[in-house]
Amino acid sequence: MLGDPERRKFRDPERTRERLLKAGFQEVYRSGFQSARIDTILAAANVTKGALYHHFESKEALGHAIIDEVVATFLHNRWLLPLQQNEDEDSIDVLIQIVQSIPARPRDLKGGCPLVNLAQEMSRLDELFRRRLEAMFRAWREAVAMALRRGQSQGTVRRDLVPEEAASFLIAMVEGYEVLAKNAQDVKLWNEGITNIVGWLQSLRAPRQPERGGRRMSKPVATQRRRIRVRRKR
Amino acid sequence: MLGDPERRKFRDPERTRERLLKAGFQEVYRSGFQSARIDTILAAANVTKGALYHHFESKEALGHAIIDEVVATFLHNRWLLPLQQNEDEDSIDVLIQIVQSIPARPRDLKGGCPLVNLAQEMSRLDELFRRRLEAMFRAWREAVAMALRRGQSQGTVRRDLVPEEAASFLIAMVEGYEVLAKNAQDVKLWNEGITNIVGWLQSLRAPRQPERGGRRMSKPVATQRRRIRVRRKR
Repeated sequence: MLGDPERRKFRDPERTRERLLKAGFQEVYRSGFQSARIDTILAAANVTKGALYHHFESKEALGHAIIDEVVATFLHNRWLLPLQQNEDEDSIDVLIQIVQSIPARPRDLKGGCPLVNLAQEMSRLDELFRRRLEAMFRAWREAVAMALRRGQSQGTVRRDLVPEEAASFLIAMVEGYEVLAKNAQDVKLWNEGITNIVGWLQSLRAPRQPERGGRRMSKPVATQRRRIRVRRKR
Repeated sequence: MLGDPERRKFRDPERTRERLLKAGFQEVYRSGFQSARIDTILAAANVTKGALYHHFESKEALGHAIIDEVVATFLHNRWLLPLQQNEDEDSIDVLIQIVQSIPARPRDLKGGCPLVNLAQEMSRLDELFRRRLEAMFRAWREAVAMALRRGQSQGTVRRDLVPEEAASFLIAMVEGYEVLAKNAQDVKLWNEGITNIVGWLQSLRAPRQPERGGRRMSKPVATQRRRIRVRRKR
């Protein structure tokens, strides 16, 4: 209908741009932004330097697009979308599912979290990078806080916690364990971290008898699994 | 007695080495290891390239020495030494004091934690860097775990926690907030993080009546301050 798809692929400017973003992300993920080599990106994307600068006016512009379009998509698919799609479910169950679905293959641990990698490297060096990454952390925090706030109004989340603070706490823990696991390259350490984060999430549940202490024991999360939609792939 | 100290300073090989380590650390802390410029380090240390390569056979060797001698000293002074020097004090009080003493001036937040910076950048790229940094995380975890274990045997720390896991949890939280605060450059976010970490540490205290629930309310930490020795400067 639209001609040979293989030939189209190499002519279509949109596809070229996508290949550059994908190859750029991989190279930045591997080496960091400053050390990322344009030649490596061009070779991986099978694109000329002219085409690169047609789509992105500089290495920085490519870096910004990698954040806005690739890293943001990970965040969206992994956290924002499941939180949005499961608004009717118990917020704590949903958060537990999300945390347990963070990929933990050896190659994921070795590479670390793309958002943390870039934030650590670039926040001090480049204000445009820093602000983009800050906006992503803010969107992440806001989405988690909103789920906790909803849980509070539904009576499933403790009312004595401040949703924004608890959201930052969760994000700090997840990112902290990403740092430790990336360094140790140790799935066991990661799994131990997830277990502890889940334990902490369970402690956010509202008590069964609101009048008097005694935290509610969580029901097995497995019973909720079929209803909660969470992507498992990075 | 030993001649003009100013002239000595520039002849003494030990002092030259120290100046190189200090300047090297600053440049790596600012730009990352891969982007650190040897010329910048030489200019800051006021040392020739020949003298640099007399002391360190390569940029990597300088990087390893920065970890082993500079970053390790921060860890030692900030965590290992206070934990060692305050063995007779309540472990939770000591940990709270340490956490509250982490420097949080704007320049500290902007620079982030030197250990996390290097671990994030180099763990994937260079096995010799990774292992050095892993050994430091391990020493950190072990020192915290030992304090918690001591607290358990003294009856001040809950017996149902696994000291090594709780230690990793604490380190992950501290490092996670370092990442968030470095990106946001926001002292408020950092202070909020410390408040939450302290709250979590308080929750590790053994209950007053071991037979039955009800967590002990912590006594005000301020009353302990004079007795616990913790360095406040980075």
